[in-house]
Amino acid sequence: YEFYQQHLQTFCALPACTADGVKVTLQANIELPDEADIALKNGATGIGLLRTEFMYMARSTPPSEQDQFEGYKALVEKIHPSPVTIRTLDVGGDKFVQDLSLQDEANPAMGLRSIRLSLHEKHLFRIQLRAILRASAYGRVRLLFPMISGVAEVRACRKILAEVMDELRKEHVAFDENLPVGIMIETPSAVFLADLLAREVDFFSVGTNDLIQYCLAVDRSNEHVAYLYDPCHPAILRALKTISDAARQAGISASICGEMAAEPMYSLVLLAMGYTDMSMNSCGLSRVKKIMRQWHSADGHALLEQILSRSTATQIAADLRQTVLRHFPDDMQEWEI
Amino acid sequence: YEFYQQHLQTFCALPACTADGVKVTLQANIELPDEADIALKNGATGIGLLRTEFMYMARSTPPSEQDQFEGYKALVEKIHPSPVTIRTLDVGGDKFVQDLSLQDEANPAMGLRSIRLSLHEKHLFRIQLRAILRASAYGRVRLLFPMISGVAEVRACRKILAEVMDELRKEHVAFDENLPVGIMIETPSAVFLADLLAREVDFFSVGTNDLIQYCLAVDRSNEHVAYLYDPCHPAILRALKTISDAARQAGISASICGEMAAEPMYSLVLLAMGYTDMSMNSCGLSRVKKIMRQWHSADGHALLEQILSRSTATQIAADLRQTVLRHFPDDMQEWEI
Ligand SMILES: [Mg+2]
Ligand SMILES: [Mg+2]
Repeated sequence: YEFYQQHLQTFCALPACTADGVKVTLQANIELPDEADIALKNGATGIGLLRTEFMYMARSTPPSEQDQFEGYKALVEKIHPSPVTIRTLDVGGDKFVQDLSLQDEANPAMGLRSIRLSLHEKHLFRIQLRAILRASAYGRVRLLFPMISGVAEVRACRKILAEVMDELRKEHVAFDENLPVGIMIETPSAVFLADLLAREVDFFSVGTNDLIQYCLAVDRSNEHVAYLYDPCHPAILRALKTISDAARQAGISASICGEMAAEPMYSLVLLAMGYTDMSMNSCGLSRVKKIMRQWHSADGHALLEQILSRSTATQIAADLRQTVLRHFPDDMQEWEI
Repeated sequence: YEFYQQHLQTFCALPACTADGVKVTLQANIELPDEADIALKNGATGIGLLRTEFMYMARSTPPSEQDQFEGYKALVEKIHPSPVTIRTLDVGGDKFVQDLSLQDEANPAMGLRSIRLSLHEKHLFRIQLRAILRASAYGRVRLLFPMISGVAEVRACRKILAEVMDELRKEHVAFDENLPVGIMIETPSAVFLADLLAREVDFFSVGTNDLIQYCLAVDRSNEHVAYLYDPCHPAILRALKTISDAARQAGISASICGEMAAEPMYSLVLLAMGYTDMSMNSCGLSRVKKIMRQWHSADGHALLEQILSRSTATQIAADLRQTVLRHFPDDMQEWEI
């Protein structure tokens, strides 16, 4: 195992592309700015997801605009010229913040969380947007809104963003006027409306963890129904394909930022669907890059066609296992499939 | 208001069809067999949904096969020759049963509930299936499995059903050999797989309450996010249309059994989508029938086309309000829209 880890490290500095030359962008999800060094060391070409909850955790009052600005700025400068995708506060579900999260919800994963909380606590939302915008003057920032369920919600976010931008202009505070604005696609309704949503934003970021959870109505932290939580459920594959197709049609980018991307077997499927941008925990980067570099995209298209014709997750898992066994017999045992 | 109620009663005995002759089937959802009389009095032509939870509630041990059989049989005989759709145990979410429901789930609505619990407690599931099958010898029974998320789950249910049927045959116990078997479409994954699921069953029954909740990731009992729970959200309309189209394509029936059907304004939209079968609480039946009898289906198609082109629920609600104002000005104030 250790040998395999060392072997993987040789891939960190190599470019990410398939054996037949399809370019792939592999970025890192991070929870704390400190993780940026590990991400870069592992070959990440940017931060695909900065979770900003760390700013709000383990403290009794929300962070000031200045505190946030400095935190984001330091990271943006460190990662420059690669981009940093900063996601606005995404609490609730399984991430709680003192004084902000409600205590009385019967199903917090379907409650006042994430962007809903930001739109409810507009004062805090504006402070965070100001801090992110100010940091955007120091490198390449992309702004990401989580848990979007429809067009009206995107417009509500963009309206507040426009107001905050106006404020900053009046104050002669610098920010990136061309800041790309994107949304997480992680609720089923966002999948159903992917074509409409694609017209409202600059990019999609697919949160596979929540997407799987909501599509299957399975709490991913509940051991009693864990057997149902499955990234290769046919419904999930169809949803992922719908999102990718809608993004391509609208000419915007769609990246994957859930744990699914870090599984080499799934990353091949995602690539075949058109997801050439993936963001994951740093430790998964070289593993995925190694596989990509040995993979021919034509094989991916054949595989995708095969699994999309299946009606159960069991059949799809068997197809994937067979593909891996054929193409990557040596790696297979390391992945613990 | 009282006058309007009396006025509505005149519709109970009239046939359900549109002004241009499209036949509609209006049935009742009931929680207790006792409600059957009210359903019939209100003009229901069958029970579209018998919730069987009442059998398990307010008692310390699960009901015996004989208890269940007698309860179902009495209802089936009373409703004969109209059909009764019996749904297997659908606990969890907001309905709990002593000793059966788990206490430690963080998000019970996405936990071990409904068909998942039946497939987990197979012994109880078999008892219920035996009781329903035995009752099917005494009238027209349709069997309905709730909370289905994929093809494998349907097959697991049908496998157990086939085993139970075999047992009964061996015991020379009578049951309806042609018992129609259907599933609730109420998880987003079931919508994504509607075409595949339609090949596995005899009918769909769309549970709009849960469908809306899971699609939008909004707990419908949570007041903090109630503003997001909206039957005319564009994502919901698309989902409902996908389901209806898949059923038509496969040549099976699809009925609606959520609260949405009881809202006259929504019932017009559902009808336009092809849902000619609706089941609702008895008190909504005459209201919906009155509207149907004054409605021309061509107007429905125009309305549907219009609202499907909208991107927000606000626009759709405005379209619906305008339609109602034009066609049913007198009824509008009674509906409290
Ligand atoms: Mg999420
Ligand atoms: Mg339900």
